[in-house]
Amino acid sequence: MHYQEGIQVQTGGQGLYEFTSEVNRIVGRSQIQTGLCTIYVRHTSASLIIQENADPSVQRDLETFLTRLVPEGDPTYTHTQEGPDDMPAHIKGALTNTSEQIPVSDGRLMLGVWQGIYLWEHRYRRGGREVIVHLSGE
Amino acid sequence: MHYQEGIQVQTGGQGLYEFTSEVNRIVGRSQIQTGLCTIYVRHTSASLIIQENADPSVQRDLETFLTRLVPEGDPTYTHTQEGPDDMPAHIKGALTNTSEQIPVSDGRLMLGVWQGIYLWEHRYRRGGREVIVHLSGE
Amino acid sequence: MHYQEGIQVQTGGQGLYEFTSEVNRIVGRSQIQTGLCTIYVRHTSASLIIQENADPSVQRDLETFLTRLVPEGDPTYTHTQEGPDDMPAHIKGALTNTSEQIPVSDGRLMLGVWQGIYLWEHRYRRGGREVIVHLSGE
Repeated sequence: MHYQEGIQVQTGGQGLYEFTSEVNRIVGRSQIQTGLCTIYVRHTSASLIIQENADPSVQRDLETFLTRLVPEGDPTYTHTQEGPDDMPAHIKGALTNTSEQIPVSDGRLMLGVWQGIYLWEHRYRRGGREVIVHLSGE
Repeated sequence: MHYQEGIQVQTGGQGLYEFTSEVNRIVGRSQIQTGLCTIYVRHTSASLIIQENADPSVQRDLETFLTRLVPEGDPTYTHTQEGPDDMPAHIKGALTNTSEQIPVSDGRLMLGVWQGIYLWEHRYRRGGREVIVHLSGE
Repeated sequence: MHYQEGIQVQTGGQGLYEFTSEVNRIVGRSQIQTGLCTIYVRHTSASLIIQENADPSVQRDLETFLTRLVPEGDPTYTHTQEGPDDMPAHIKGALTNTSEQIPVSDGRLMLGVWQGIYLWEHRYRRGGREVIVHLSGE
């Protein structure tokens, strides 16, 4: 059995936005007991990541590290027409993930105790990012 | 239902090579309407990435960034017998992806408007890279 | 058909630990002939990677590179209460993968000739890491 829902994850500029509870609700509606949950982001300047959700300092430090590794205004960038945050956003997306997979057992995501599902926004913009949650299972 | 095809993606040295249209044709032949498409590269010195396909400068800048981050001739490399481009290729592969997943809906890949599927070749060599396209769905 | 097993991968400090043979045995027990194998790590300070298993120098050089890229003691880290290896471990996890997917054909993983499946331990600790191996197929 395959089940899909599209959602919008709201972002307010660069950083990590947790949406684990939305994914949990979709897993529940799918009524799948044993299977696989795939999450997919339909953008190339935002990405997905599964990271620690206990201490917000982890998410801040991830953002600080990645922004130093992939700085704005690098003189080697040639793709500069869409703003100073655009090319760094594509590179940050390339170094992280467009999709994540999590097994489902007994009707629940098999996340570890401290794992949360995040959208990582790499642009300044505020708005919604399109994410598809796909479940296969039985 | 599960459906698989192996393809060869031709490369001519380091850079990104789009093969979205080949994947689209395989999705069509699978006749799957709702499901999941998984793409897998059977190599450790080439990788897969979903990135913007509107402006070729994005792909060039990605290549420039990654080659500066993972330079040839780094004195810490001990795996050097297979040529100066080999160990950087493994590291570049580790920082990107061996597989990508894209949901399928109404018989079509749910790629975003500007998303394309690329093989990222990390070696100088010209030739073909083995890629498996797997579909599960109904 | 969906089939799942949880395993513990034993680690003895930072580095790559191959567990391809354990995954092969689970694929055999699942009796799936055509399908998809998903591997998932339930931690945010260890990750998964598919890399060359012919020459151990590749794995050593990967560890050396990533530890230089994400050093301990970086003054920008604010998440420091869990030890000097903790925040670098989260960043290393973010730059690599929480899950890997490998197609299955004729009852076998379609790994390339030199591809092996590794758990990448990013912390000093010795012990076991929880990994879920999920198969879907027929």
